[in-house]
Amino acid sequence: MRNFNEDNITQAVLERLSGCENERTRQISEALVRHLHAFLKEIEPTEAEWAGAIDFLTRTGQMCSETRQEFILLSDTLGVSMLVDALNHRFTGNATETTVLGPFYVEEARDLPLGASISHASDGPAMIVEGSVSDQHGEPIAGALIETWHADDHGFYDVQREAGLTALDMRARFHADENGRFWFRSIVPAFYPIPNDGPVGKMLDAQGRHPYRPAHVHFKVSAPGFETIVTHVFIEGDRYLDSDVVFGVKDGLIARLETIEGSMSPAGHEVTPGTALLAYPFVLPAKR
Amino acid sequence: MRNFNEDNITQAVLERLSGCENERTRQISEALVRHLHAFLKEIEPTEAEWAGAIDFLTRTGQMCSETRQEFILLSDTLGVSMLVDALNHRFTGNATETTVLGPFYVEEARDLPLGASISHASDGPAMIVEGSVSDQHGEPIAGALIETWHADDHGFYDVQREAGLTALDMRARFHADENGRFWFRSIVPAFYPIPNDGPVGKMLDAQGRHPYRPAHVHFKVSAPGFETIVTHVFIEGDRYLDSDVVFGVKDGLIARLETIEGSMSPAGHEVTPGTALLAYPFVLPAKR
Repeated sequence: MRNFNEDNITQAVLERLSGCENERTRQISEALVRHLHAFLKEIEPTEAEWAGAIDFLTRTGQMCSETRQEFILLSDTLGVSMLVDALNHRFTGNATETTVLGPFYVEEARDLPLGASISHASDGPAMIVEGSVSDQHGEPIAGALIETWHADDHGFYDVQREAGLTALDMRARFHADENGRFWFRSIVPAFYPIPNDGPVGKMLDAQGRHPYRPAHVHFKVSAPGFETIVTHVFIEGDRYLDSDVVFGVKDGLIARLETIEGSMSPAGHEVTPGTALLAYPFVLPAKR
Repeated sequence: MRNFNEDNITQAVLERLSGCENERTRQISEALVRHLHAFLKEIEPTEAEWAGAIDFLTRTGQMCSETRQEFILLSDTLGVSMLVDALNHRFTGNATETTVLGPFYVEEARDLPLGASISHASDGPAMIVEGSVSDQHGEPIAGALIETWHADDHGFYDVQREAGLTALDMRARFHADENGRFWFRSIVPAFYPIPNDGPVGKMLDAQGRHPYRPAHVHFKVSAPGFETIVTHVFIEGDRYLDSDVVFGVKDGLIARLETIEGSMSPAGHEVTPGTALLAYPFVLPAKR
């Protein structure tokens, strides 16, 4: 096969995939070629625009490090991460809604005992998180694993600090108690811009978009026999709830931050008066 | 806007682009979002597949260096480079056909006098290239700039050698003489696999494709008032002419490699008997 032009090149590439033995690989490759070529035929890029795209993708890859994932930011800001999340979580009923993982999840977080404080390097306003994990019938899931991470009161995650992975903070792993309850102490996170000093920040600028996410706490909740829920709890009243740069907000994931007046939380844990309370009940669907 | 799901996320991202002031940026961004989301809705990637794609793109970017452009290889092997080339070169008549630039072009090549040898670090079979540059009416274009580069007799470009950019070889820039003629000496290039020790090589493996390109010499020919032609001259008889991994072959770009029996080339240049002759007449269209 030779002499390819705009009318026959797509079919030629598809035919070249006929030797692909893995059916799923062929399906994905074929769809990629069809949609990618259709995109290019629609926009008819100049050669300079093509070179610009090559450069953009190269810089995006080279911006990635142990503590920075620029391609996840790109996926997030193009709505791809939320779409993939939606396609993979067609849960029904009262299961907790899911949202994007984001680029700041770290597998190596500490296991801490219930009630521990997860914030050490910041002195923002005190917060206690009190949650529960149950199945869709309201039965508590004892021992459920709760992984949590969030930004500080200036909007930065631990891994964005100079120390990087060597000083994990505002993230930990907990196991729910025998009643499916968990609680821990931290500081109130702030809204923040996604890291915008790289190619994705430049893209948002060019598209006339702001880079902000409303304040939230990330949760990944899992237990044997149940679907894992990756989600956030957003703080009610944040100015960016309606324009989250990564399209992650769902009404069911917004919680009001209450102020505890006395020295005891609703669930009976000792706190400094004025501590903020974030409470959320997680509901896991049974494994499909 | 909140509560995005697979049915409304695409429209939500498109609406977020409404503040984009540059019309072309908005057009490209909107088309990207529509086609990218359509692709994902068709294949419904698992979260592991999505993470695999993020990893693939990241590794592709991180494979890039001063002498390696893995995203151009990706573009080439998916037929994207040939499609962009076709969309940008709808020339008519007898203009020389174009093909992909490829990842091995280097701007800093040497200016050499006509007749010079461009190959120093290899002792492959001797070749003389004799060409001409004219307009579409057959008038010679005196002083046209000819940039050329090719692989050695083992199929490697200079920049793939250990010395990288510090020892440019088998590439140079020439200016045509007053009759639009140019000639230079080198060695006969071999067919070769594109660099396949990176993510693109793994992709080709997974797709059941070989990584080979038929033997060729690259040319970029330019002159004031004319469209620049980026193309190759392929060597007739190569086993990969019909399955070029980057879809670059056109019949009009294939030339027969003649053997010169005596000590004088057809254009009157002294050669060692047995030298191979590659002759090609380039025709540039007037600037549009």
